[in-house]
Amino acid sequence: MSPNLALNQQVAERRAAGEDIVHLGFGESRLPAFEPLVAALVAGARRNAYGPVQGDAGVRAAVAGYFSRRRLPTDPGQVVVAPGSKPLLMALNLVLPGDVLIPRPAWNTYAPQAALAGRRAVAVAIPAEAGGVPDPAELCRTVAAERRAGRDPRTVILTLPDNPTGTLAPPALIREICAVAEREDLTVVSDEIYRDVVHDPAVPFLSPCEVVPHRTVVTSGLSKSLALGGWRIGVARFPADGPGRMLRDQVLSVASEVWSTLAAPMQEVAAYAFAEPPELRAHLAAGARLHGAVARAVHAVFTGAGAVCRPPAGGFYVYPDFEPLRPVLAAKGVVDSPSLARCLLDRGGLAVLAGHLLGDDVGALRFKAATSMLYGDTPALQWQALRSDTPLTLPHVAAGLRRIEDGVRRLVS
Amino acid sequence: MSPNLALNQQVAERRAAGEDIVHLGFGESRLPAFEPLVAALVAGARRNAYGPVQGDAGVRAAVAGYFSRRRLPTDPGQVVVAPGSKPLLMALNLVLPGDVLIPRPAWNTYAPQAALAGRRAVAVAIPAEAGGVPDPAELCRTVAAERRAGRDPRTVILTLPDNPTGTLAPPALIREICAVAEREDLTVVSDEIYRDVVHDPAVPFLSPCEVVPHRTVVTSGLSKSLALGGWRIGVARFPADGPGRMLRDQVLSVASEVWSTLAAPMQEVAAYAFAEPPELRAHLAAGARLHGAVARAVHAVFTGAGAVCRPPAGGFYVYPDFEPLRPVLAAKGVVDSPSLARCLLDRGGLAVLAGHLLGDDVGALRFKAATSMLYGDTPALQWQALRSDTPLTLPHVAAGLRRIEDGVRRLVS
Repeated sequence: MSPNLALNQQVAERRAAGEDIVHLGFGESRLPAFEPLVAALVAGARRNAYGPVQGDAGVRAAVAGYFSRRRLPTDPGQVVVAPGSKPLLMALNLVLPGDVLIPRPAWNTYAPQAALAGRRAVAVAIPAEAGGVPDPAELCRTVAAERRAGRDPRTVILTLPDNPTGTLAPPALIREICAVAEREDLTVVSDEIYRDVVHDPAVPFLSPCEVVPHRTVVTSGLSKSLALGGWRIGVARFPADGPGRMLRDQVLSVASEVWSTLAAPMQEVAAYAFAEPPELRAHLAAGARLHGAVARAVHAVFTGAGAVCRPPAGGFYVYPDFEPLRPVLAAKGVVDSPSLARCLLDRGGLAVLAGHLLGDDVGALRFKAATSMLYGDTPALQWQALRSDTPLTLPHVAAGLRRIEDGVRRLVS
Repeated sequence: MSPNLALNQQVAERRAAGEDIVHLGFGESRLPAFEPLVAALVAGARRNAYGPVQGDAGVRAAVAGYFSRRRLPTDPGQVVVAPGSKPLLMALNLVLPGDVLIPRPAWNTYAPQAALAGRRAVAVAIPAEAGGVPDPAELCRTVAAERRAGRDPRTVILTLPDNPTGTLAPPALIREICAVAEREDLTVVSDEIYRDVVHDPAVPFLSPCEVVPHRTVVTSGLSKSLALGGWRIGVARFPADGPGRMLRDQVLSVASEVWSTLAAPMQEVAAYAFAEPPELRAHLAAGARLHGAVARAVHAVFTGAGAVCRPPAGGFYVYPDFEPLRPVLAAKGVVDSPSLARCLLDRGGLAVLAGHLLGDDVGALRFKAATSMLYGDTPALQWQALRSDTPLTLPHVAAGLRRIEDGVRRLVS
């Protein structure tokens, strides 16, 4: 089972046994559904017929507009809609040839999907400045070494902004990776599902699709930005022509055999959401602000305790490194990623996803913490957090932050 | 692309160009959504969080009850819920070892799924009495021949009742196949998505899961019996223990990496539908009656024109064989499955799915006709058909039948 889901189960069992645990191990946005989205679903509730495999024409036009507004001019024919971006990424794994290069650490689904599709996944270390992308020099070296070994690296997956590090690779870095992709003839899969959760709208976002559009497939969805994980709405944008167009046709062929279509009532939701009317933009902006404020606060807790951690720029994650505290931790038997996560849970009452479960070095003292679990356990508390100009001062958010502080203190002292 | 979906598109284009086409090529139930199902979806419309990969406990309990009422005692732990039965069948393809044996003809998704998963699909002819199952003697011979050739047949897929032939394999035949499965150590995947569309409740239904429960996985869903193809709700029932239990865990692992979960609002629908309250049973019975009446009428049209055709017993398909008319058809250039379907479309205005697209012999003069397209083009007409004791006398249904008669006449005369 996916390790985050296994952790979920473990947390549920410990809570049932009476333990007080702060669950920072699940990548869910933890906000209520925005009311116009609910209204769109209800409006679509009588649509019971199979829709087109590629998605409704209206939905694809809306998605094309969404990408076009992000400097990616898009025709509706380039868009495929699906029940989540996971099936789209799996379909790409099933049709793309060769091995796939993924950042280390990375979202814990890329490597297992590659394995299910019978592809080799090759992890490449991320640079110091940001995760979600392989270090360009490392990428070159790895491609060369793989080819010398008779292997066939053909795809690289990027995550912009990144899960698990919560960072956003800057434009210069993207350009370097695109240059490598061009030179080495790699297809770029750019997972941009957190794009609308960049905390500060002034931070520049460069998609590889702006640089090497003919070789880039962009995936996205509504699970993160609109907290619709439970509705399963994903999209992919393919190149307009050439091999990228054929790739779209191959993915559509997989779609028709494996999932048929996005559920018809959900197409109504997608048509509304990807059109981005003003009230939805305001809602998205409020979400990004809240995610940023809380992620920065959690970041401050970890760095305050002595960890090093890249500052979060998007999404709702931080990925601290407790290496500076290795001597202190070693005295408590914490010597690697599994023992760190276990000790945080047993002594600190904090559930986090150990770095090695994300492909990171098992000897490193790193983990992913999902910060969105602090917004509250009820829709009322979550709305309060979303609407507040100072969410950190809300009693329930402040209490959650104190619990993390306490947990970290119990770990290191 | 899946050939039925490709045909759909072709029909839409021809209609847009002004042609009058009766579309018998798409396996959709073509009835409106039953109002309590819509109410359940609306009731779930605020559920935006990720649910459990396996499905809500309540939904799985309802599905366990559904199977238990069908002589398959089931614990909720044996049930996996998913966005359609297609992803579940694909997951089985990804985790089951060896080659897969499928009936010839069969639903046009089994073989492509096997190919996507890197498995060999081996077609075995169906017996004279019913489709959806390989002829038992043929099955024995094929398994032996495959093994002699160094191959590894390990799974057999059955469809009960069958798509495309619209027939239901009788219990004696099921027992014979189960005996082969037992002797040859084959896993049985029993696709029972049409089970609640058996036309006559007095016709006995035997699931292989009643005979060899330890080696049978049953898949089903709401797309056919409740006309919810556009909602994507499927289920699988795994053996309670032993290797079947491990198979469930492997499928759950695939699920967690490929589709996460059935959309949360749809879980409300599934909980309602699989509990089968009295009003839903009445609705299901009305649907089965209508499907049977119209399928029998279309069957009579084809046999009346000189084709041979197994009488339909479940679902909404007939699968005529125009072999007796080969000399007449040859004079018009119709000599095989593709030319037969093309001529029916061009001369007769009838869109059907050619037999070779379902794995059948390309030289045979066979096709699948979906009879559900006759219920009407609007919900009002469809409700009228569903509620009528004599649906064949309704003007729109009678007109559709006449159009088929005309189309067949233009083909053969």
